[in-house]
Amino acid sequence: MPRYALKVEYNGAPFAGWQRQADQPSVQGAIEDALARLEPGPHTIAAAGRTDAGVHGLAQVAHCDMTKNWDPFRLSEALNYHLKPLPVAILDCAQVADDWHARFSAIERRYLFRLLVRRAPATHDKGLVWRVQNPLDVEAMRQGAAHLVGHHDFTTFRSTICQAKSPMKTLDDISITQVENLSGPEIQFRLRARSFLHNQVRSIVGTLERVGAGAWEPGQMKTALEACDRAACGPVCPPQGLYLAGVGYPEDPFG
Amino acid sequence: MPRYALKVEYNGAPFAGWQRQADQPSVQGAIEDALARLEPGPHTIAAAGRTDAGVHGLAQVAHCDMTKNWDPFRLSEALNYHLKPLPVAILDCAQVADDWHARFSAIERRYLFRLLVRRAPATHDKGLVWRVQNPLDVEAMRQGAAHLVGHHDFTTFRSTICQAKSPMKTLDDISITQVENLSGPEIQFRLRARSFLHNQVRSIVGTLERVGAGAWEPGQMKTALEACDRAACGPVCPPQGLYLAGVGYPEDPFG
Repeated sequence: MPRYALKVEYNGAPFAGWQRQADQPSVQGAIEDALARLEPGPHTIAAAGRTDAGVHGLAQVAHCDMTKNWDPFRLSEALNYHLKPLPVAILDCAQVADDWHARFSAIERRYLFRLLVRRAPATHDKGLVWRVQNPLDVEAMRQGAAHLVGHHDFTTFRSTICQAKSPMKTLDDISITQVENLSGPEIQFRLRARSFLHNQVRSIVGTLERVGAGAWEPGQMKTALEACDRAACGPVCPPQGLYLAGVGYPEDPFG
Repeated sequence: MPRYALKVEYNGAPFAGWQRQADQPSVQGAIEDALARLEPGPHTIAAAGRTDAGVHGLAQVAHCDMTKNWDPFRLSEALNYHLKPLPVAILDCAQVADDWHARFSAIERRYLFRLLVRRAPATHDKGLVWRVQNPLDVEAMRQGAAHLVGHHDFTTFRSTICQAKSPMKTLDDISITQVENLSGPEIQFRLRARSFLHNQVRSIVGTLERVGAGAWEPGQMKTALEACDRAACGPVCPPQGLYLAGVGYPEDPFG
């Protein structure tokens, strides 16, 4: 059974999340249904990160096993054809070793969170950004974020339903940049780690927004982290600004 | 009756165009309905440019007449409240003179056309860009576009149903730039003129795409223009990449 890695982009808005569910649309289900149009199923694909409802993918990575040998480019084109009109696209496809695993072989995940700062509701970016009405102090947020980089107990920034065995994680980087998009000033948070806890990015960004708004001092991020207490977290921000932006492997399968 | 200028952003996808229609959703109708929630109607608003179905607004300008004196900021906030959940937002509002007219006082229109160059279908930008699969030569398109700048008979680049009295127009500028958006390489066409003919931007961009693809020589843009014949136009591109990006007045009402 040849195995293929898929680089997947999707708009999470119409889906109940990545993971297949019996009675609700999912990204995994959409791709498995498209695979079943190419070879009789059942198909079960695995992904590097199981994104929640409303969360998007820019370069999610999944793998699938096929019966016949497919030219990777033709496989991606055939999947894109059968995925229409859903907002899911296969950006790249490559054959990988039989023991390569989209989730277990991954050594890095990169997330992007997009925040639009303006009074008026989002129109073109609706469902794709978190719109915040108050101005934000980017430098204060950078100072607050710096306290989180490194190896820490992230209990404070972890959903109470998180199933990870340990709250210890190493956050390699948080960068915060301001860009001008067509609808106004956008703040982009980029986080990089080997792996993340459930709701970790949304808990961190939601709390940093409070720092940017001036409601929290930057140093309170350190206090909150060291409390190792979920109650010390600021508000968890909504899912619609969050994107799984990339996955790293010891060797890039698409390289 | 105090008059107010409105700066309007909208995603054109769910609308049959700007103009109010009896049986289909329109941007004008959405705003007039929101106005009727503030003061009994009927309300009739006028806009600088009546965009077609699927065409978007980044900074369309319209004006409305009200009975009572509104604080402009409160008027914009009240309209945004009643426009929810439609993808229409009032970005700015200002009181103007009684004889100021969003359409007739305008001395410049600016359009943006967004084109996404990649194999895979658009997901996040679906309905917001024209996705083209073949690579495009930006420099060749710039050479072709240069032939159109200035005062010309634009019959070739004008819809056969265009109602303007004359096909003579002055195109002040076309700039073509390549940017990297989150989904890949995007080409942005920006056109500026006092006014445009019906389908002029889509006719120009659709023909320039043929130049970028290598199917037309840049000099053929000149030949096509000089033919003054609709049959000499290349393919008209789809509406979903087109945005009314700004309107100029002798004095900026929002300044």
